Amino acid sequence: MTLNVFDKPGAKVRLDDIPAEPPKGMTREKAAKRFAALEKELFELQDAMFGAKVNSVLVVLQGRDSAGKDGAIKHVVGCLNPRGVIVTSFGVPTPEERQHDFLWRVHRHAPRAGEFSIFNRSHYEDVLVVRVHGLAPPAVWSERFGHIRDFEELLTEHGTIVLKYFLHISKKEQEERLLEREESPATAWKLNPGDWKEREHWDDYTAAYEDAISKTAAKHAPWTVVPANAKWYRNLVIAESIVEALRKRRKDWDETLVAMGKAGREGLEAYRAQRAASAKERKAKPAPPRRTR
Amino acid sequence: MTLNVFDKPGAKVRLDDIPAEPPKGMTREKAAKRFAALEKELFELQDAMFGAKVNSVLVVLQGRDSAGKDGAIKHVVGCLNPRGVIVTSFGVPTPEERQHDFLWRVHRHAPRAGEFSIFNRSHYEDVLVVRVHGLAPPAVWSERFGHIRDFEELLTEHGTIVLKYFLHISKKEQEERLLEREESPATAWKLNPGDWKEREHWDDYTAAYEDAISKTAAKHAPWTVVPANAKWYRNLVIAESIVEALRKRRKDWDETLVAMGKAGREGLEAYRAQRAASAKERKAKPAPPRRTR
Repeated sequence: MTLNVFDKPGAKVRLDDIPAEPPKGMTREKAAKRFAALEKELFELQDAMFGAKVNSVLVVLQGRDSAGKDGAIKHVVGCLNPRGVIVTSFGVPTPEERQHDFLWRVHRHAPRAGEFSIFNRSHYEDVLVVRVHGLAPPAVWSERFGHIRDFEELLTEHGTIVLKYFLHISKKEQEERLLEREESPATAWKLNPGDWKEREHWDDYTAAYEDAISKTAAKHAPWTVVPANAKWYRNLVIAESIVEALRKRRKDWDETLVAMGKAGREGLEAYRAQRAASAKERKAKPAPPRRTR
Repeated sequence: MTLNVFDKPGAKVRLDDIPAEPPKGMTREKAAKRFAALEKELFELQDAMFGAKVNSVLVVLQGRDSAGKDGAIKHVVGCLNPRGVIVTSFGVPTPEERQHDFLWRVHRHAPRAGEFSIFNRSHYEDVLVVRVHGLAPPAVWSERFGHIRDFEELLTEHGTIVLKYFLHISKKEQEERLLEREESPATAWKLNPGDWKEREHWDDYTAAYEDAISKTAAKHAPWTVVPANAKWYRNLVIAESIVEALRKRRKDWDETLVAMGKAGREGLEAYRAQRAASAKERKAKPAPPRRTR
């Protein structure tokens, strides 16, 4: 599978040139088969990473309304063992969050060693919605790209594998999804005129995303533009990308686990030897005189 | 299915009288079929609760080493949409946690409206391991039962459904599980002589659990003693119990969702009417004079 990966600072990103549809020849059936294999491998990789506690993973999910961030969490993150996964959705900042710099609220949700942290929206909103709606002056938000680069570098140096995804849907697909929500009583509670209002800023968001991806693309914190018009292909691409990134570390983790197993076994042997010795000692000692009532 | 539920303060709890094996007539096949149905219902219930944001769920998992707390999380919590679930494992308190009362560290992980919070061990450790190992004097830990009752009542009044599970395994089953870990290279990294040391205090833990369950059993925060020698039956019982508790609220949630859908639809209509009106207005106005360069 060829992924649309941007991992060089200043990469030229033209979203309109990247297809939102699955590539020719890819079918739902092929994807399902591949996804099942990835699901199994992902689960094993997670287990090894959890045990070894050498690395952790930060997955950033970005995309327009209805692009499928929630769906990706349900289907891809849903493959993982919930122990060791934190999912955080970042909405409008709370009054407390506003009293801090823009990285404060995300930093506290960085993954612990061995664990996954999934961001549904993220610190990138501070160079996206903030920029499109002029919630901060350009002098403020334009400084943020550098801070984001520094922040993601800090996480990487600490052992966090940073993976960023832009779920790429076409304008037409978004319209269909929003209209679909109105038709089904099961999803009517999600209706929000805000989604339609945001849609009016489609091109502004495109420019903001292209800039954000370009300015924060890095070898250690790559962006993948995910063709997301078909949900099954979107899930496949994200799963494939995560597995590829984790697979490279598997050997490290397995070695750590073997060393831990060895240490554990030695600890057990020592414990058993000590218990045997004290049992023998108790036997060797003369019984204490029996007290008479 | 008959569940071993303790929901009355002062309930008489005799763990040795409660089977750790599945009941006669229950088979792995029957359980799998029932579990699949529960899985589906649980997912739907979660979705409705998430949308309605009226209630939330706190699941407390307690049990001895190897009783299957992690397994229950993997299989039962794994059925849920990871958006809206937080799993927290409580280990030895950190230096920061020690500077606070025993409920401080758990309170911050109480579920948000619409969400699940799963505790792998919990505030109950402060009347279990603390008691068995004399980490606090009886005058201290014995006061905690009242604080736990008050705390769980506070959560309930706020809309949290509190469900507590003791995963009940036999002493023989534990021995087999611990020995199994040593045999498999895949699980060797989990080896810990501490598990065997804790096992020496089996009866003390039994007494501490019986007391804790009895003193904190309540209608609004029931304990279920889960026969956990068979992993498949353990998963079934927990899933059944959670679904039973949530099913009672389903009607409330659905009503809230319908009201939300209605409000959303009205908001959309107002937005569209306003857009149509301003388009008309623009048309009616004479075009501004064209500027020449």
